[in-house]
Amino acid sequence: MAQPATLRWIGDLPGVLRLIDQTRLPGEFVEIDLQTVEQVWEAIRALRVRGAPAIGCAAAYGVIVGIQDFLKAARPEFDARLQHVLQYLATSRPTAVNLFWALDSLRDVAASLPTETPAAIARRLLDEAQAIEAEDRKMCTAMGQHGAALMPDRGGVLTHCNAGGLATAGDGTALSVIFAAVAAGKKLQVFADETRPLLQGARLTAWECHQRGIPVTVVCDSMAALLMRDRKVSAVVVGADRIAANGDVANKVGTYSVAVLAKAHGIPFYVAAPSSTFDLTLDSGAGIPIEERSAAEITHGFGKQTVPDSVKVWNPAFDVTPAALIAGIITERGVIAPVDREHVTQHLKP
Amino acid sequence: MAQPATLRWIGDLPGVLRLIDQTRLPGEFVEIDLQTVEQVWEAIRALRVRGAPAIGCAAAYGVIVGIQDFLKAARPEFDARLQHVLQYLATSRPTAVNLFWALDSLRDVAASLPTETPAAIARRLLDEAQAIEAEDRKMCTAMGQHGAALMPDRGGVLTHCNAGGLATAGDGTALSVIFAAVAAGKKLQVFADETRPLLQGARLTAWECHQRGIPVTVVCDSMAALLMRDRKVSAVVVGADRIAANGDVANKVGTYSVAVLAKAHGIPFYVAAPSSTFDLTLDSGAGIPIEERSAAEITHGFGKQTVPDSVKVWNPAFDVTPAALIAGIITERGVIAPVDREHVTQHLKP
Repeated sequence: MAQPATLRWIGDLPGVLRLIDQTRLPGEFVEIDLQTVEQVWEAIRALRVRGAPAIGCAAAYGVIVGIQDFLKAARPEFDARLQHVLQYLATSRPTAVNLFWALDSLRDVAASLPTETPAAIARRLLDEAQAIEAEDRKMCTAMGQHGAALMPDRGGVLTHCNAGGLATAGDGTALSVIFAAVAAGKKLQVFADETRPLLQGARLTAWECHQRGIPVTVVCDSMAALLMRDRKVSAVVVGADRIAANGDVANKVGTYSVAVLAKAHGIPFYVAAPSSTFDLTLDSGAGIPIEERSAAEITHGFGKQTVPDSVKVWNPAFDVTPAALIAGIITERGVIAPVDREHVTQHLKP
Repeated sequence: MAQPATLRWIGDLPGVLRLIDQTRLPGEFVEIDLQTVEQVWEAIRALRVRGAPAIGCAAAYGVIVGIQDFLKAARPEFDARLQHVLQYLATSRPTAVNLFWALDSLRDVAASLPTETPAAIARRLLDEAQAIEAEDRKMCTAMGQHGAALMPDRGGVLTHCNAGGLATAGDGTALSVIFAAVAAGKKLQVFADETRPLLQGARLTAWECHQRGIPVTVVCDSMAALLMRDRKVSAVVVGADRIAANGDVANKVGTYSVAVLAKAHGIPFYVAAPSSTFDLTLDSGAGIPIEERSAAEITHGFGKQTVPDSVKVWNPAFDVTPAALIAGIITERGVIAPVDREHVTQHLKP
């Protein structure tokens, strides 16, 4: 069963960005219409839409939302507005590279149209945003197909955070691999780390699997090691927010822990991400900026105080898993394995 | 600064068991008076009092609460009541062996007094319960002294769950080691895993350290690996609920994960527990019964639903860490290292 669209453009020009407010799942299924660029920025910042590919799509449509009141303006005014919107959206979250990649794509389109009218440029930018969304769907499908062969025929697969349809415009990255394996007849049982602090695994991955009728069991993050020791899982697959040239992967905090544990238990650890997730300007994961989020995400998990007043907390939203712990990176082009600079370079050659 | 007593006996015979309701920390500091054995059973079951040594003390006083209305009964009636109370309290929680050890101690005292009156037996049992509590305090102090030398002179120490004063009648097991090291002038920074699902690290360990003015930082369980990779912690110390003859340790779920991660990062992993935590009837950790608790602890952890309806969860309350991952077990007698059957046997010789 397909699930509702994570995000979509409603109308034409002008239009609105409609997306599922993921902060309200699984309790409530609510779609919100975003009509200002500030609303789009806030939706990305507050994780109403999250997941690296989905952030890229949302940002692309956010540009359209931000410029569509300027279609009758003079070019200089329109250009200034466009630059402002591009720069502003780039400040919404720092780690997922797809955000910058999508904004750069739109910037390049506009730069290629020096003599067009604002309305004509906006039309091309909307086309580009829709192309990014369509491309994302296709990449999800391709990742699923390339990755399905890596999944066991029968058994448990662990995932961390949500790298599913809700993290993309399509079927997801890591979950697309699982969905494709199940569609191909494999008997998989998904284990979802709940993924503190914001519980994307418990709230979103469990919701997606359950919607599709795939058996899923939620565990606390600290139980993943036990699942591995007891051989309840025989593979791990996760998404990525940014991948350096040497194959180091930034992803939701806790991913590094899962990767070390998988290595210690001899269980293969896979990453699924579109090639737009690679940032070849970074030599290694050490250069990836790691967002630190509000202490309240930990201290007041869901409205109730769980840490005493005045006690320090540390809340990095991501961590970096070194390439050496990764059995393979699944992209829309195929599988990178072993994961090292040479194979990454080879894989991404135009 | 000493912290308030986790539990104490108020009055004489009859008396009440007063304890801190730990489910309400850190939001509220509330002491409750338990006047029936059913209340004591519920307090142990619901984790109002928790931590293996404190459970043992609470159960011992629970016996007194349970028999003190029978002091004027005939011996057969009193004996039947005592057996009922002993058996009933043994069903409160399955994993911590200190519970059974404390109940057995009281059973042995009663069995040694075949001709005494109920009132005289109750007096001796209250003496025994108070001796167990006093002994627990002494053991905490001794563990602190033996373990302090193992702590770094300066740096971070990670702990999981709460093995502090709140888990004992004294200064704690793992935290006693940290407290003693700090008292001896070491500059330690405590990192507390929040410890899902019930957040004893965030709620209780942070509270204890903060009360004593020891720097403490709370992290999500999934961040422990990052602390290790970044060398923010250079030792780990945790408590134990039951230790088998070969040195395998059952402790709060997530402990095994921390131990595997510590090994992978070359960081010493210590366990602190009184000798009453050893169960020499068990050849290895495989024989330790592991309590599975309610799914709601995970699905509605913060008072708000975080897992979709009908999705399965797995909630083992404990896990077993193999002896090979443990650098040393600190007891009131000294330190067992290396941790294996031979050294455990040697250490526990009468």
